[in-house]
Amino acid sequence: MALEHCRVVLVEPHYPGNLGAAARVMANMGLRELVLVRPVADPADARARQMSTHGEAILERAHIVADLGAAVADCVLVAGTSARAGGLYRQQTVAGPDEVASLLVAELVHDRPVALVFGAEPSGLDNAAITRCHRLIRIPTGPEYPALNLAQAVAICLYELRRAWDRRQPCLPAPPELAPADFKLQEHLYGELRTALEAIHFLYGPKGDSLMHALRHLLGRARLSEMEAKLLLGLARQIRWYVDHHHSDDPL
Amino acid sequence: MALEHCRVVLVEPHYPGNLGAAARVMANMGLRELVLVRPVADPADARARQMSTHGEAILERAHIVADLGAAVADCVLVAGTSARAGGLYRQQTVAGPDEVASLLVAELVHDRPVALVFGAEPSGLDNAAITRCHRLIRIPTGPEYPALNLAQAVAICLYELRRAWDRRQPCLPAPPELAPADFKLQEHLYGELRTALEAIHFLYGPKGDSLMHALRHLLGRARLSEMEAKLLLGLARQIRWYVDHHHSDDPL
Repeated sequence: MALEHCRVVLVEPHYPGNLGAAARVMANMGLRELVLVRPVADPADARARQMSTHGEAILERAHIVADLGAAVADCVLVAGTSARAGGLYRQQTVAGPDEVASLLVAELVHDRPVALVFGAEPSGLDNAAITRCHRLIRIPTGPEYPALNLAQAVAICLYELRRAWDRRQPCLPAPPELAPADFKLQEHLYGELRTALEAIHFLYGPKGDSLMHALRHLLGRARLSEMEAKLLLGLARQIRWYVDHHHSDDPL
Repeated sequence: MALEHCRVVLVEPHYPGNLGAAARVMANMGLRELVLVRPVADPADARARQMSTHGEAILERAHIVADLGAAVADCVLVAGTSARAGGLYRQQTVAGPDEVASLLVAELVHDRPVALVFGAEPSGLDNAAITRCHRLIRIPTGPEYPALNLAQAVAICLYELRRAWDRRQPCLPAPPELAPADFKLQEHLYGELRTALEAIHFLYGPKGDSLMHALRHLLGRARLSEMEAKLLLGLARQIRWYVDHHHSDDPL
């Protein structure tokens, strides 16, 4: 079943009970792939097993990786959760779990891997992780205390994913003509682009990160095809070629 | 704030961690009234407090009652959750959390108290409790393992309640002309009705409970006004009066 191709990624989870409860609700909703990035909690902990109930097999098979990039390298859409408000890092592409679930299902029906990413308790995803997400999810809460328990945030997102899956169109639209760029190719592009834009001093100093983040999200929102990503990669390389061949000619 | 008038009722909760996590997500979503019916877990347990975080005050103020009826006596709408499928007790009025949340908010905007009721881990609400709910909620899951963790079920229902609250109409429709019958009056009516229908042998033997359940849900769905409830109460009394005055005249 293609819903299984949605991976749940927990970044630095601290509490074994949350690992178990996340695995349980994955079993409830029909998901299987759990990836733990630098987990602080041990998935073999007794409390994790106790909370996992019928999700114990998911917990046992969980992949442990050192970096978010490794967890989502093959994914065409990576959605992260964030309760924190304000700042450049979440002005863009923040949506409710229902809206993002529909986008994820639109990829899942074509058997393309996607990921839902959750940050550590209690701080959530840091800016370095947030900037790598194509979409950010904000779960609506009251204003006074927006920070949800990790396992409950997972439950709410997977509930919406299940709903979106259950109401998906049985008559699928034709796959788009061009294959989407996967996360790994996109990261490669952003790395090359950053180097190129630094070489022409478009990016420099303390504003560099913010500008790069804005570019990433603009391109992320556009959902680049593989061909488009390669086109932009060519552009980045051309900029560097130009700089390399003209720098010494500068009349300084 | 009127969203606070939605009470969360946990029937016989077994695990302190679930009490705490339920209180926390209530704080997240802007609710305050927690009622525990015959709790097995102690709300003062260290694990409950730990899981409650900013919901600790809600946990401390939780009311403990001996009976579901006492928990929801003044409520005009009582919604219970049920994962169990099949059987008469949940053929009727089962809906998703989104649909029921809209119904609850429609009362809350008029400051009328309502309740969300959750059963014990792992069995859920029993038939005696289910028959007293005006609406049943089924949270969509995969088919293999539908039984959600209690605190995650609470999170999903309160998420939908919060969403329904946030999108409520700022321009409210006029309150209905007639005040709705509260739970206590409805229970009184059902008790009188049952006695009356037993007196005329409409209800008897093993099918009695099922028929009474069907009647309750038919009337529950109609959302009786106080005046209508009193009208039916008068009918029930009239049946008994008739039986009392004609029974001895029966040509047996």
